[in-house]
Amino acid sequence: MNSLLLSRRDLDFLLHDWLDVTALTTRPRFAEHDRETFDAVLDLSEAIATRHFAPHNKRNDTEEPWFDGEKVHIIPEVKAALEVFAESGLMGAAMDHEVGGQQLPTVVANACMAWFQAANVGTSAYPFLTVANANLLLAHGSAEQVDRYVRPMVAGRYFGTMCLSEPQAGSSLADVRTRAEEQADGSFRLFGTKMWISGGDHELSENIVHLVLARTPGAPAGVKGLSLFVVPKYLVGDDGSLGERNDVVLAGLNHKMGYRGTTNTLLNFGEGVHRPGGAPGAVGHLVGERHRGLAYMFHMMNEARTGVGLGATALGYTGYLHSLDYARTRPQGRPLTGRDPEAPQVPIIEHADVRRMLLAQKSYVEGALALSLYCSLLIDDERTAPEEAERTRARQLLEVLTPIAKSWPSQWCLAANDLAIQIHGGYGYTREYNVEQQYRDNRLNPIHEGTHGIQGLDLLGRKVVMDGGAGLRLLLETIAATADRATASGGEAAELAASLTRATGRVAATTARLWSTGDPDTALANASVYLEAVGHVVLAWIWLEQYLATGEDADPFHEGKRQAARSFYRVELPRTGPQFDLLDTLDRTAAQTAPDWF
Amino acid sequence: MNSLLLSRRDLDFLLHDWLDVTALTTRPRFAEHDRETFDAVLDLSEAIATRHFAPHNKRNDTEEPWFDGEKVHIIPEVKAALEVFAESGLMGAAMDHEVGGQQLPTVVANACMAWFQAANVGTSAYPFLTVANANLLLAHGSAEQVDRYVRPMVAGRYFGTMCLSEPQAGSSLADVRTRAEEQADGSFRLFGTKMWISGGDHELSENIVHLVLARTPGAPAGVKGLSLFVVPKYLVGDDGSLGERNDVVLAGLNHKMGYRGTTNTLLNFGEGVHRPGGAPGAVGHLVGERHRGLAYMFHMMNEARTGVGLGATALGYTGYLHSLDYARTRPQGRPLTGRDPEAPQVPIIEHADVRRMLLAQKSYVEGALALSLYCSLLIDDERTAPEEAERTRARQLLEVLTPIAKSWPSQWCLAANDLAIQIHGGYGYTREYNVEQQYRDNRLNPIHEGTHGIQGLDLLGRKVVMDGGAGLRLLLETIAATADRATASGGEAAELAASLTRATGRVAATTARLWSTGDPDTALANASVYLEAVGHVVLAWIWLEQYLATGEDADPFHEGKRQAARSFYRVELPRTGPQFDLLDTLDRTAAQTAPDWF
Repeated sequence: MNSLLLSRRDLDFLLHDWLDVTALTTRPRFAEHDRETFDAVLDLSEAIATRHFAPHNKRNDTEEPWFDGEKVHIIPEVKAALEVFAESGLMGAAMDHEVGGQQLPTVVANACMAWFQAANVGTSAYPFLTVANANLLLAHGSAEQVDRYVRPMVAGRYFGTMCLSEPQAGSSLADVRTRAEEQADGSFRLFGTKMWISGGDHELSENIVHLVLARTPGAPAGVKGLSLFVVPKYLVGDDGSLGERNDVVLAGLNHKMGYRGTTNTLLNFGEGVHRPGGAPGAVGHLVGERHRGLAYMFHMMNEARTGVGLGATALGYTGYLHSLDYARTRPQGRPLTGRDPEAPQVPIIEHADVRRMLLAQKSYVEGALALSLYCSLLIDDERTAPEEAERTRARQLLEVLTPIAKSWPSQWCLAANDLAIQIHGGYGYTREYNVEQQYRDNRLNPIHEGTHGIQGLDLLGRKVVMDGGAGLRLLLETIAATADRATASGGEAAELAASLTRATGRVAATTARLWSTGDPDTALANASVYLEAVGHVVLAWIWLEQYLATGEDADPFHEGKRQAARSFYRVELPRTGPQFDLLDTLDRTAAQTAPDWF
Repeated sequence: MNSLLLSRRDLDFLLHDWLDVTALTTRPRFAEHDRETFDAVLDLSEAIATRHFAPHNKRNDTEEPWFDGEKVHIIPEVKAALEVFAESGLMGAAMDHEVGGQQLPTVVANACMAWFQAANVGTSAYPFLTVANANLLLAHGSAEQVDRYVRPMVAGRYFGTMCLSEPQAGSSLADVRTRAEEQADGSFRLFGTKMWISGGDHELSENIVHLVLARTPGAPAGVKGLSLFVVPKYLVGDDGSLGERNDVVLAGLNHKMGYRGTTNTLLNFGEGVHRPGGAPGAVGHLVGERHRGLAYMFHMMNEARTGVGLGATALGYTGYLHSLDYARTRPQGRPLTGRDPEAPQVPIIEHADVRRMLLAQKSYVEGALALSLYCSLLIDDERTAPEEAERTRARQLLEVLTPIAKSWPSQWCLAANDLAIQIHGGYGYTREYNVEQQYRDNRLNPIHEGTHGIQGLDLLGRKVVMDGGAGLRLLLETIAATADRATASGGEAAELAASLTRATGRVAATTARLWSTGDPDTALANASVYLEAVGHVVLAWIWLEQYLATGEDADPFHEGKRQAARSFYRVELPRTGPQFDLLDTLDRTAAQTAPDWF
């Protein structure tokens, strides 16, 4: 039986037939790899996700972590699964050999991670946060911080968190108040409260390594005064032994709609519950330089946001496969015409409206997976492409694509989960089936790592204007190159290319128009609509790329790809017309609505 | 403080300034009522919903009903609230004086019910199902059935259910298998399993009255062989005393994503657990004539489906008010231009994108409420308008509007709940706030009482072609009359009217085109898209009606109405363009997708 998590056939198509990731092995960093090692780690990921992560996904939801006032209790399957994950070396999948990693390309490592996200996002979040934390310390921490914290994280002994938000500072990190006071020995003591900290407390690992944004005395106001600190739950001796309990205290768990398997916490730093070394405050150490904290966080942001998009994709993808399986096996009703009430019922996949819902899901989730892997490959190119021009190109393209790679799957793979429920009918609304949890889990993705609104501001306010608009130009050129290939191949591909070219023309014209007034308020009042419209055009391009990668054969898998592409061009791309029309009017309806009119 | 459930100001605007419901009191049925009695029952509903239903809404969700194998346990607040509801006479709000009702117009009774649905759908479902059951028996039951079952239901002593679906027969009622065997005394014994029965078992009332679709021996196959039976949980003696336990046994509770306060059950009839009168089978009595069961159910369908739409509206409305309140009080961030990190944070309603999300919600929920009340008034007109031509007009318009009144709020007020979460950011994703429950609760509405797909088939396959297309013609004429008034009033209203007229032209042309081929399969493969497009045009009409009802004054409430209308015409109505374009191509993409291409 085919997996209900992801389609390995689709992954192979995207990684090899389309992106040709084996070509990466000509680069020194990946020279020890080949198609076989890539296949092996994908096989391993599918196997561990299927055997150790998927089985407790529902229990992780129904018996969510709870706090007895002293300790957090988590069902034992979580720790067991994470031990298998770490033992298999997946924690360091993309990291350097030198720190215990496998030095896989990010694109392959991300394809592996998607298996775990599809199987169980609640359990997967612990290692994923740990990897993000470790990557940040590898990029900006000292050698001593790498030894003390990163190596145990790669080994799966310590887990990591990211502590940015506070109760009064969510989207507005400028308002972070946690303060860090320098001590005579060069260490710091931190005081403050952090909110929404995933994995902020648990008993799954020997230690928890918090990366904390805080403000040193006299630092400038706003985001320019933020520094980054590493603050462990237990102090770590020079020999790596665990020492005193640090003053990082769990104030409470948030109880979420979904993603329940991951503890989400309110943490107090320096509240005085513990007094490490007999003095008040949570002991922390500066990462890199002062006042560079947010810059370090943002350095990892493209990767983190692509990761959120990939997680949203994985949830949408598994929901699609669940509803496809249901549609193939659930008998209900008969063909609309010539129906004979004595004839046996047909599987619901025979009904056109069910196929419409399946095709919509397919166009969302396979499109999102392709985009996520494309961006993952850009991360590899940014770091390892042999020529600097290629690296620059990859960086600029990645900058402009990241808000879309984060927001598009978060919106449309959630829409896929909604359709998966709808195909299940009443069953889909019950907790006895998996699709309702997938829908609840996925609802987080448009919120965390920058809301949809923040992604819109990032795209229209920063990314399409940065480097004099180089990123957007590059994107449009890249899309045009695909359209040219499609035009040359003729037939239906050429027709799709013509639609795509019209749509990219609108992207260029509308972007110019929005910025033509010199009035950022008007431009940015339209940022979310702009994000959605450009996102759909990008996905149309991704679908044309997939269409071309199928070749001309009649393999049903390739026919399915072409049919999904066709569906995207017929049903989805035209949605952007009214959006561009609206943007071109420089609409200020919302901006001009007085608060007392609501 | 304004209510966070509904806006009484808006209800008054819709009921009086727009629909002029007090004019109904010139009809004999409503002659005892006046504006004062309407106001009093609305006040009463708001007060009871606020004091007795809203406070346990969250507890009803977190401590959902559970079955110990013998009994269903429900938190005590539910029974207490329902006692207040019944004692206040609301159970029979729209029923005849003769059976203990208040003989209110349906439009007023529905406005009352919306308060309860906004406060707590889980608890509200018990009386609403009871009312639906009672109305069906009033319309089709015998005088003896009315005395035996309806009067105790109006008094709140018995509750009712509707038992249609079975595990193998959800959307396809043709496949109902429950059988009813006639006995020598004219009663029947029922054997079978019913699925998805809301309120199917509990200890909230003295008795539960099930209305059950079943098949008598030798009945025709399909829906034409279904008869309707009344089957009480406890047999009722001629003197109204409760007798033996009938053989209707709870086989299990379904555990749902939302709507958790309402038990949803699998019921076994005639399984042999009880043997009333010493014989096997659940004792039931035929309602009306044999083989007319589905017709009786469908007789009440317009009202039931309008009720589902109203429930979806109420959930969307309260979510909107919650997010509006949050947006006014939550400080976060600063204006985008000229931002000074030392300036205090502003309430998020100051951000254009938040106002965009509020305005979208407002246009969905106030539009849906207006549509729901308009259709409720049509139910009154169908029954009580003095001239037969008026009654026929109301019936025809109601037939064509019902699938939209059911599906549009279910889709777009759920979208409103999604935006309400988004405005709350991370807080909205937690169970500490109300908006996440509203989103989960509302996700049921596109499924029950006929899925979205079923509504599309109903609209395109039945309603727009019935009576030679009279309903659709009438709808288009009614819309044209509104547009004419708006054109005559000039200015912006005339501009909106021009857009509306173009859109209705497309409805007419596309409907003709879809049926032009004589190929129902192609037409109906597009039914869901058709439903959505026509729904948006109908709502644009409803918004123009509201725009006109505001008059010319500068009252902020009226400004808000006009702004929401404007927003609907700028952002929403244009979405229908690509939908009509797609429909006009007689798209068969989904219909032609082979199952093995997925």
